[in-house]
Amino acid sequence: MATLVCKACGERFPDTDARWRCGCGGVLDLDFTPSLDPAEVAGRPATLWRYREALPVPEGAELTLGEGFTPLLPVEIGGREVLVKQEHLAPTGSYKDRGAAVMIALAAHLGVSGVVEDSSGNAGCAVGAYCAKAGIPCRIFVPADNSPGKLGQIELYGADLVAVPGSREDTAAACMEAAADTFYASHVYMPHFFHGTKTFAYEVAEQLGWRAPDTVVLPAGNGTLLLGAYIGFTELAGMGLIESVPRLIAVQSAGCAPLAAAFEAGASVPAEIRTSPTLAEGIAIAAPVRGADMLEAVRATDGHFLAVEEDEILAAFRDMGRKGYCIEPTSAAVIAGAARYVRSASPDEVVVTAFTGHGLKAGDKLHKLSGV
Amino acid sequence: MATLVCKACGERFPDTDARWRCGCGGVLDLDFTPSLDPAEVAGRPATLWRYREALPVPEGAELTLGEGFTPLLPVEIGGREVLVKQEHLAPTGSYKDRGAAVMIALAAHLGVSGVVEDSSGNAGCAVGAYCAKAGIPCRIFVPADNSPGKLGQIELYGADLVAVPGSREDTAAACMEAAADTFYASHVYMPHFFHGTKTFAYEVAEQLGWRAPDTVVLPAGNGTLLLGAYIGFTELAGMGLIESVPRLIAVQSAGCAPLAAAFEAGASVPAEIRTSPTLAEGIAIAAPVRGADMLEAVRATDGHFLAVEEDEILAAFRDMGRKGYCIEPTSAAVIAGAARYVRSASPDEVVVTAFTGHGLKAGDKLHKLSGV
Ligand SMILES: Cc1ncc(COP(=O)(O)O)c(C=O)c1O
Ligand SMILES: Cc1ncc(COP(=O)(O)O)c(C=O)c1O
Ligand SMILES: [Zn+2]
Ligand SMILES: [Zn+2]
Repeated sequence: MATLVCKACGERFPDTDARWRCGCGGVLDLDFTPSLDPAEVAGRPATLWRYREALPVPEGAELTLGEGFTPLLPVEIGGREVLVKQEHLAPTGSYKDRGAAVMIALAAHLGVSGVVEDSSGNAGCAVGAYCAKAGIPCRIFVPADNSPGKLGQIELYGADLVAVPGSREDTAAACMEAAADTFYASHVYMPHFFHGTKTFAYEVAEQLGWRAPDTVVLPAGNGTLLLGAYIGFTELAGMGLIESVPRLIAVQSAGCAPLAAAFEAGASVPAEIRTSPTLAEGIAIAAPVRGADMLEAVRATDGHFLAVEEDEILAAFRDMGRKGYCIEPTSAAVIAGAARYVRSASPDEVVVTAFTGHGLKAGDKLHKLSGV
Repeated sequence: MATLVCKACGERFPDTDARWRCGCGGVLDLDFTPSLDPAEVAGRPATLWRYREALPVPEGAELTLGEGFTPLLPVEIGGREVLVKQEHLAPTGSYKDRGAAVMIALAAHLGVSGVVEDSSGNAGCAVGAYCAKAGIPCRIFVPADNSPGKLGQIELYGADLVAVPGSREDTAAACMEAAADTFYASHVYMPHFFHGTKTFAYEVAEQLGWRAPDTVVLPAGNGTLLLGAYIGFTELAGMGLIESVPRLIAVQSAGCAPLAAAFEAGASVPAEIRTSPTLAEGIAIAAPVRGADMLEAVRATDGHFLAVEEDEILAAFRDMGRKGYCIEPTSAAVIAGAARYVRSASPDEVVVTAFTGHGLKAGDKLHKLSGV
């Protein structure tokens, strides 16, 4: 297992504590040493549990809906080939399944009697599905003004939906209150979630023959994939399985770009910003809890932030559709970022990105957005 | 490549003819001899093209969106373990991708300048996506009274949707007229489609360590998966890679069960039936073109047909949801059939079935059907 470490004050807790925050209010990371033998991994089933010695969950506690080992396909983006992980083909339709699988496996291992989580989107679906699989009762807090259709998937998994009047922050506050006596399966706070999403990096490396790509283009909302990938590539480099950590290009929507603004300004914490409506609702996070970490990770790899405009997002959405890929608009924002990035990339650079969410998540909008 | 053979009169045509029916009106099958070396297959990428020596498309003509090699997961169904292929995680959300990948690969290889197809559902999505990938213009004929939301995915892929007033048969007739001078990429007529879906059987056998299960429970609408699986298992047995062809249990909705009725009556062609509305719209085919073949295949394996009721379909849909699987109602009909079948199965029987379509295909209905 692993040790929880407060990023603010350094206090340490055993991970059997199932706590999501330090007493001082600080966010927790995991102190954990992975190990991995590529030769052993090669013969294992194609789920993320093939990397089980690198996952902070004891052997035998694995929980699976078939997540991980998504195809890595060459797709023409911005006029050249980019390798795209097909994360939208995950069991619940997004890469959040990686985080939820590992986090809820831990919850089940600890024998928790229930979990709470706040989300109206893909993280809620993922937590709902893995709780269903584990037989753990699950309550998901959502903003009351949410469109009912979006929540059908969470309801189907049997989660108890709690609609909270007010803002997204009011929803989070209600969830944190409930978290006083219930396991808070937070995709933002729980470091185990990031140790699930880190398998994205492990898979990319394995699929490239235990090599790192030069550059990885990922979304920057709460950074669950970006920071997970950073952890994963850093661990792989530490174990000598890849030469170095790839450059991380982090994509925000121009409608909500606190990190792109901070990056430009040379700041180390998210900027205070005005937001405007965006098609990329999944990455519209105005005050990301782990924003400072994201700035640090991107700078450490000599990467940068990009803020993409609405017309670029829509164009990327349609372009991918016309190439046979049905992705959600939030996911198209990342592809718009990749298209912009490759304009200045060198021709022999290996660039990897991801389709982060399934287009059928936005099934009601496909007709309108498809542009026919 | 392979030879097209008329099932009615025996006439033979080279498959470069791109024809979908014999001059006599008869349906065509493929005369094709597969080969396969399991040791070579083992190291290949996890798509259905790993079986390329067994596919009637020349090497180099492969077309991929990452289809195939879906997880085979144990799921509790009807109180015991059943192995379920996660076909709903295919690129466009259903196993139809198997058929479309192989059929459109052939179309691209033949250099066709466009295709037509008639479908309002999953086959249309699959053909649309693979045509997009191949860069082949594609026209999909749909009944005019279709709900526009269902068609968004097809539109996103850039297919030209043609709404035809009248019945489903009128739609098919309009498409066949267009097929006079355009490649008819029909999931019902084109035998290549079935040689794509046959990879379902290849994968199940490989995932079981080159063994066949005892029983396979599959949908019976037009039989694209059922007949594909029958071809696949028969070929595998012929190559000595499995001992025998598993028992095939074919599931229809009681609301539209022409084959279950014919099976009961000992008939060799579909019965004339009255239909009633069903949640399982994807298998509600009143007059299946290949119905006689389906009856023959099921009888040849000592299997049988089942007709499941609406309450069983809804119960299976919710039960799978509560276990973490988001499948479409049509897909739940198959699970209802599996639940009914295993009641009389012997405890050590290895039973395989499939989640045939993604629940997000019915995103607008999830809230209502979830039962909360
Ligand atoms: C489809 C999709 N893409 C990207 C993101 C942004 O991810 P993150 O918040 O992990 O940065 C989300 C978050 O919900 C998402 O649902
Ligand atoms: C999800 C799903 N399941 C099952 C079927 C029935 O398949 P078939 O017509 O191949 O028998 C279909 C057909 O469209 C489908 O979409
Ligand atoms: Zn602290
Ligand atoms: Zn003939």
